[in-house]
Amino acid sequence: MQDKSYLMIPGPTPVPPRVMAAMSRPMTGHRSEEFAALLERLEERLGTLFGTENPVFILTNSGTGGLETAIANTVSPGDRVLALVTGNFGERFANIARAYGATVVEAASPWGEPVDLAEVGRLLAREDFKCVLATHNETSTGVANDIAGIGRLVAGSDALLLVDGVSSIGGMEIRVDEWGVDILGTASQKAFMLPPGLAFVSVSEKAWARVEQNRSPRFYFSLPAHRKSLLNRNTAYTPAVSLFYGLEAALDMIFTEGPANVYQRHILLGRAVRSAVRAMGLATLAGDAWASPTVTAICAPDSVAADDIRQDLRNLWGVVLAGGQGGLKGKIWRMAHMGFAGQMDVLTGIGALEMALYRKGYPVSLGRGLAAAEKVFLEVE
Amino acid sequence: MQDKSYLMIPGPTPVPPRVMAAMSRPMTGHRSEEFAALLERLEERLGTLFGTENPVFILTNSGTGGLETAIANTVSPGDRVLALVTGNFGERFANIARAYGATVVEAASPWGEPVDLAEVGRLLAREDFKCVLATHNETSTGVANDIAGIGRLVAGSDALLLVDGVSSIGGMEIRVDEWGVDILGTASQKAFMLPPGLAFVSVSEKAWARVEQNRSPRFYFSLPAHRKSLLNRNTAYTPAVSLFYGLEAALDMIFTEGPANVYQRHILLGRAVRSAVRAMGLATLAGDAWASPTVTAICAPDSVAADDIRQDLRNLWGVVLAGGQGGLKGKIWRMAHMGFAGQMDVLTGIGALEMALYRKGYPVSLGRGLAAAEKVFLEVE
Repeated sequence: MQDKSYLMIPGPTPVPPRVMAAMSRPMTGHRSEEFAALLERLEERLGTLFGTENPVFILTNSGTGGLETAIANTVSPGDRVLALVTGNFGERFANIARAYGATVVEAASPWGEPVDLAEVGRLLAREDFKCVLATHNETSTGVANDIAGIGRLVAGSDALLLVDGVSSIGGMEIRVDEWGVDILGTASQKAFMLPPGLAFVSVSEKAWARVEQNRSPRFYFSLPAHRKSLLNRNTAYTPAVSLFYGLEAALDMIFTEGPANVYQRHILLGRAVRSAVRAMGLATLAGDAWASPTVTAICAPDSVAADDIRQDLRNLWGVVLAGGQGGLKGKIWRMAHMGFAGQMDVLTGIGALEMALYRKGYPVSLGRGLAAAEKVFLEVE
Repeated sequence: MQDKSYLMIPGPTPVPPRVMAAMSRPMTGHRSEEFAALLERLEERLGTLFGTENPVFILTNSGTGGLETAIANTVSPGDRVLALVTGNFGERFANIARAYGATVVEAASPWGEPVDLAEVGRLLAREDFKCVLATHNETSTGVANDIAGIGRLVAGSDALLLVDGVSSIGGMEIRVDEWGVDILGTASQKAFMLPPGLAFVSVSEKAWARVEQNRSPRFYFSLPAHRKSLLNRNTAYTPAVSLFYGLEAALDMIFTEGPANVYQRHILLGRAVRSAVRAMGLATLAGDAWASPTVTAICAPDSVAADDIRQDLRNLWGVVLAGGQGGLKGKIWRMAHMGFAGQMDVLTGIGALEMALYRKGYPVSLGRGLAAAEKVFLEVE
């Protein structure tokens, strides 16, 4: 059916109608009092969501630009950086540091597993790093990392902890100040329920000392420039005005539901998907103890061409899942339950997957995955 | 989850994004050449959809106004009218005729059953009627009536056949000229996938003779006024311009899918819902032979308060079903699969109903209704 689309990829995610409506308001000048007041309101709520007393910069670029902002302001050529890599986006964060001349030591986990805290402790004890890079939620594998645990280890060193929270923030709890996160970067198009185009970046006091001395070139990504403008209730460069309107509507929704409830909803959706996947005789890539609440990586059976199934899901039912990246290409499906996602979305995704597998001759018992999801929602054993 | 709403009532129905986008275009004057050209394009495609060579008037009023247009132009005080009543909307059509002074003879079927053609034949043989009123799709009971069969009977008399096609047209096949329908009235907010506010009315040559002589008062509903304006590529009174824009987008969608495919889709969705309902141990009000392809009336079990379940569906999952009307109040649920509806909507409606019934202690086996729907979609026995 034309126009029936169920976007279940881990970003961009579906945008709620009231956010779309907010974004269709007329332009205002970004040097106006009206815009300054909007910026102040957004700042206050982003700080609450991040769990920080420090400002959260709203940058007109997508998530990678937010992470580059973190690196460009804290890494100088020759600096030694420890990258905790659990998948494709961990690799990307390390590559940004390399682009700025860092010598990167990678502590890599097998894909599907989280950061090994004991290994991080050993590495930090052995040498001094300028920065530690971590991924809160590894979108390529559906793995959530223990940022609080990593933060405790890094706090005992001079290193700064830079965290990629692109696919977590808004859907998973974060406590920036309490957990010792020095720079957190996230983006608009995931659990924030907005189109792509904005990044949100917090900076700790510990980080500022480094930021001010840093020798890497930076202009659009300059945190000192952003800070100076924010003190004037302004942005350093032209902001994506419509997305700022949308951000206020999205934050309204998040705070109306309550952040704690939002996080519980994501945890429940993830549990339901994993339970359904197992009831269908399939496995998830990540174990329950570290499975992401916002995206589930589902292992395709060997007998089935994973990307053919994705085509069928899209063509027959308008259901769009993501495939695997890197070494997981053609081997997994990634089903997001991120942002504007509810229980009926899980039934849609699982129902379509059941039917697509059945059509290809995989021995799935129709309705069994769906029943497993329903049981999680109803809290039935 | 805020903003997650699954509107499954038999009108208004969900409006596709591209129809909403079309309706947000700037106003044009309705006496402009641009509007005249739009009107011509709409006329041509409505004629194809109705299966008529005669004009189809696009009236700025909702469905009841379309049916009143039919009556006000063909019924004079004291006329004898035969009303074929199969539910609440059949009653309403009869009441409009009464409001215009008709003496109405009702041929009523038990709710859940269709028009009895043999009875209609007997009544038409016994006396002359000015008009016969029929409902194509009785929204209150989920029953589809055999308009072709009724048309054959009425064609042998001097009576005009006036048909309420409000909840059918766009989702069920109609052949106005071939089936002998003298006036067909339908509305925008059902299978046409538009918001409410427009009615579409066709008038046969046989009807025009009566229309011109009719003695009932009429101005806004005057078919001669509408015909005169249409000859000038215009509307008699100010049209709902945005809805005309939306109508073109909706007709684009219907003709891109192909009307025959649209009708098959509705039939398939209806079959899946009925199969799921039975797999859950429930009954449908209408038998398969005359069940509506656009809305299914589901009999609530005696042990369950039907309207409490509707509240739960709405509060817990955002799924909105209609309740019963008249004598069926509190006894049925009506689930629409009308217009902008696809297979995933059936999984949503059935999944939510399964869970709601389970929560109330009704012995439903979770996943069984969903599996039955999946089997219909996959054509598995």
